[in-house]
Order: sequence, then structure tokens, then C-alpha cells
Amino acid sequence: MPQLPSPDALVSSVGEHALLPLIAQRLAAVGGDSGVLLGPGDDAAVISAPDQRVVVSTDVLVADRHFRTSWSTPEQIGRRVAVANLSDINAMGARATAMVVALVLPSDTTVGFVLGLADGLALESARAGATVVGGDLSSGSELSIAATVLGDLNGRDPITRSGAQPSDVVAVCGRLGWSAAGLTILQRGFRSPRVLTDAYRHAEPDYEAGPRAAQAGATSLIDVSDGLLADLGHIAQQSGVAIDIDTNQLAVAESMRDAASALGVDPLDWVLTGGEDHSLVATFPCGVSLPEGFQAIGNVIDHGESTVTIDGAVYVNQTGLGWDHFA
Amino acid sequence: MPQLPSPDALVSSVGEHALLPLIAQRLAAVGGDSGVLLGPGDDAAVISAPDQRVVVSTDVLVADRHFRTSWSTPEQIGRRVAVANLSDINAMGARATAMVVALVLPSDTTVGFVLGLADGLALESARAGATVVGGDLSSGSELSIAATVLGDLNGRDPITRSGAQPSDVVAVCGRLGWSAAGLTILQRGFRSPRVLTDAYRHAEPDYEAGPRAAQAGATSLIDVSDGLLADLGHIAQQSGVAIDIDTNQLAVAESMRDAASALGVDPLDWVLTGGEDHSLVATFPCGVSLPEGFQAIGNVIDHGESTVTIDGAVYVNQTGLGWDHFA
Repeated sequence: MPQLPSPDALVSSVGEHALLPLIAQRLAAVGGDSGVLLGPGDDAAVISAPDQRVVVSTDVLVADRHFRTSWSTPEQIGRRVAVANLSDINAMGARATAMVVALVLPSDTTVGFVLGLADGLALESARAGATVVGGDLSSGSELSIAATVLGDLNGRDPITRSGAQPSDVVAVCGRLGWSAAGLTILQRGFRSPRVLTDAYRHAEPDYEAGPRAAQAGATSLIDVSDGLLADLGHIAQQSGVAIDIDTNQLAVAESMRDAASALGVDPLDWVLTGGEDHSLVATFPCGVSLPEGFQAIGNVIDHGESTVTIDGAVYVNQTGLGWDHFA
Repeated sequence: MPQLPSPDALVSSVGEHALLPLIAQRLAAVGGDSGVLLGPGDDAAVISAPDQRVVVSTDVLVADRHFRTSWSTPEQIGRRVAVANLSDINAMGARATAMVVALVLPSDTTVGFVLGLADGLALESARAGATVVGGDLSSGSELSIAATVLGDLNGRDPITRSGAQPSDVVAVCGRLGWSAAGLTILQRGFRSPRVLTDAYRHAEPDYEAGPRAAQAGATSLIDVSDGLLADLGHIAQQSGVAIDIDTNQLAVAESMRDAASALGVDPLDWVLTGGEDHSLVATFPCGVSLPEGFQAIGNVIDHGESTVTIDGAVYVNQTGLGWDHFA
């Protein structure tokens, strides 16, 4: 029986072939293998796909761009990667079933860091009903984590970005701007209020919201990863419609108002352009009873220009609409 | 109609949202969308999975570790990434259906480089019958490409690494050591013989070999990515068997012999420890008629120690067995 390496041991001293079984052990400890026909340890995994269709999405997160090891624990970083991926399946109205993960690890990465990451990936996947079934490791100069998640539609049509219709109601499920507020707080060197920094450190999407929206007849659906305006912009563009948001319907929590006031920023900016809460925003036919957790925030107003307006006007803020990884 | 950016434009000046549609266009030009129910451009893609099971594997390749931009064109690098992934599906006896790709791009990456990469990924996927259906982009300091590939078993059982039985025949389909020979040549600063450097630049696996092996009753199957000894080592370990290779049955091509002699290396070292030709090695029950393209190279000799021997003895070379990314 080989001795277990210390959590402080460097991955470069342990080696890929010794590290992979340790990771697999941690993943297995979380369990949740419903639908996993063949797990980690072979050339590929095999997953059940009862619907005869599989939903697939991939998202890569890079250190110091999408997360900071000084702001988040390894487990929180693993959860963050998992959330970004699982949320894309939710945003199709599907349920996640399985995840695979490709890690690029600098040689000074510790075994403890990698196992913490694996815990976070597995725990968040389990929260969505999915299992981490495999992965790949490479050395590299920069820490990055690319995950791919599979999902099942359970007989329903996928809800795309292109089905919004004039007179549809726009509704959101989950928080807006909380993660962005937490990020601003951390960037300014503060550590509280915790309710906001925790929202940055660990978004908690409702992974049943997508399937609920699909069952309720959503015409379009997207997760808020780049910011409400930017993501509604994708729906507006791909559906060929104009969307207007009514700020009276956007609740701004008191903790956000207080933090914004202390930091000298407009809290509406967080709500409209802050991403990474991974809430869902959908359009529903007018008159449909909105599914649990969804709140109306605006309307599809036109088949004309693909625009998103706020209270009838173009929103102008200090940082521009959403953001672009290369801008 | 927006103007197309020049191939020399930097991705950092074009931006993610302008780059993604350009990539999607290049992928669409290759076609081959059988089984793609929803392609790139939404939160996730949707793929047909008629077998009600889906095979999934992920592999990440990092610049200057798994490829060099000075040795390979962008298209060859794209093909290389695709081969590494598609080969894992082949090694389960399955057929690849779809691929998603996560790119981490340094800010000095050109649009032309990314589109060349996309071409390579799409063309090699098409060679295997698969389609690139989505991806993600991030900036980063180091170029890395993480691909995930899905596959279909067409009603057959997956062929794992753990089914080899005593008295089974070990057989290989495809070249051994050619890619390693080409790599040694390039590392020594030479550019020929082309037949070997090309083998390094572009492995051409037979993507029907896996399904053929499965149909013929293979008891275990793996692709040679780390080297014949290392990969047979996985079968030996996971099946709990000992394997012996008969070097009389290992053909060493004349071009390899000549190059090895010129470089002062043992060509058998390339054949036994060179990876990345992505040939398949399988075990078949004794007496089974080997499927097309497979050649017997040894036998499963025992249920004892999980070892791989060469002509009955432990193989000792200058570089050790196979290799480890962190070693």
C-alpha cells in the first residue's frame, strides 16, 4: 500500500499517475453516481443518456482572471468552476448529469490544493445532481481549469436564446449583482460585509430553475454570467427582439445599497452589469403563470432593433455593458 | 455587415464576442453535423445519443509541453489536440460524435492562429465522424487547449482496460514509435526524414479500429498515448495480469532504423516507449481471428504480478518506461 503524500507535497513531486487515483478517491467520497455506467480510470467514462440526446457545454477559468487563490479556498474555486459549467446546462432547461475536468497545474501546486479543488467540483456537481467522472492533468505555467458538463433534457425541448417573442414577459430567478458587489469589496481591500463577499466566493444557483422554466413554457432562457444587460443582449440579438427592463421591479437588497453607498458606487450598476451570480433570466408568453422563484422584471417590446433598454432608455454606466475577456 | 478582421489581428483587439462567430463559421464550413441537434452559439449544444449512453473524455494540451508553435502549424496543433481526444473514444470501442473546446489564449495570439486551430480541430473531428459543437475562450498567459469529446457505443459494451485474461493475445493496430522518432529528430534540430517528422506533426489514427476490435471480441483496449510499455502497463495493472511482448513480432520500419542509427539511439526504444501515435493495443481471446489492421505482438501470460516484460525480461532503456507529465 503506497503511503499517501502530504497535502503540502508538490504535484510535481508526486506525479500524475499517483495523483489521479487520489483525486478519483475524493470524487468517489462525494458519491452521487446515478447514471454513471463507467467512472474515472479508463480512456473515457460512460454515462447514461436516457433521453437519447445529450446537452454539452464547456467553460475554462484561469487564475487571476476568473478567480484568485488569495480570495477563495481551493474548494471555493472548484465550486466556482463547477457553477459556471452547471449553470449552462440549467440555462437550457436541462439537468446536469456528469462533468469532466482538465487541469493545468503550475509545478508549485500542492496536492492539498488539487484535492480541495476536486472536493469543490464534486460537491457542487452533486448539488446539481451530477457526478465528476473523469479528467486530465497537465503541468503548465498558469493554473487553469476547463470543465465540460453533460446534461439531460428528460424529453423536453432545449430552451435556447432565440425564441423570445414580442409581448413576452422577462423574468429572473435568483440574485443579481451580489457576486459583483462582493468582488468590488474584495478588490477595494475589504473583507466584509460577508453576505456579499460570500456571494462572490460561492454563487448558489437553483439548478431546478431551468427545468421549471422549461416546464412553464419559457420561450428563451440564459444564465446571467456576463451581467443582466449583456446576457439579455444575447437573447435580444438571437431572437431579433427589443427588451425593456423596468427598474421598479428590480429589488436592490439593503446590504447592496449600504455597501454601494460606502464604496461610492451605484448599486444598480452591480444589478445590471454584474455577472457570475448565475441566476437565470427567461422570457415567458404573456399571461403564463411564472414558475416558482421567477420574478417579472420587464417585457419584450418589439421585433425591431435588437436592443436592451432600461426604463425605455439606453443604460449608461461607468464601466460599459457587461465585459469581454479580451477587451 | 461588420468587416472581417485581418488574420494578423490580435485576438485581444478583436474580442471574444467577435471571435466566436468567426470560429463558428470555420467549423460550419467543415460540416459533418449528423447528430448535432443544436450547434454553437447558445449556452450549450445538444447532441443525439441514440444508444442512450454517451462516452466522454477530456484531454488538455499545453504549448511547449505537448506541442510547439515553431514545429507545427496552427492546423496541425488543432489536429493534434483532436487526435488525443478522439483516440480516447476509439479506445473504448466507440465512435466519436461531438467535441467541445476550451481555449486559453495569450494576448499576442492572432486571429489567424485561432482560425487555423479551429480548422484543424474540425477537420480531424470530421475524419472521425464527429463535429465541433461549441467552446469557450479565455485570455491567459500560456496557450492551452482543453478538448472534450463525446462518443456513441452503438449498442456494444465499452472495452475497458480491465478485461484482459491469461492466454489472451496482445495485438496492435497502427504505428509504434513514429511520432517519438519525429520528435527526437526535431529536438535535435533536424527537419527530415519527413516521413518521421510528419508522423510527429500529424498522427493519423484509424478511428474504426476501436469499433472493429470491440466487434471482434476484444477483452481490453487502450490507445498508445504514453508509450506501448506504459499503456500496456495500465492494462496489466487494471486487469491484474502479466503481459509479455515478443520483439520478433514488432516490425521496425527501415526509416526508423536509419534515423536511429544516424542519431545514435535504439529504435526499439521509440517503439516501446514512444507515445502519441495513438495506435490501439488490445487483448483478444486466444484463437479469435484478429480484426483488420491488428497484428499480434505478444501474450497475456499470467494472473500474477501486473508486469509488462519484453521477451520475458524487464525492459531497461535510457529514459525509463513511458513518461509522466509532472516527473
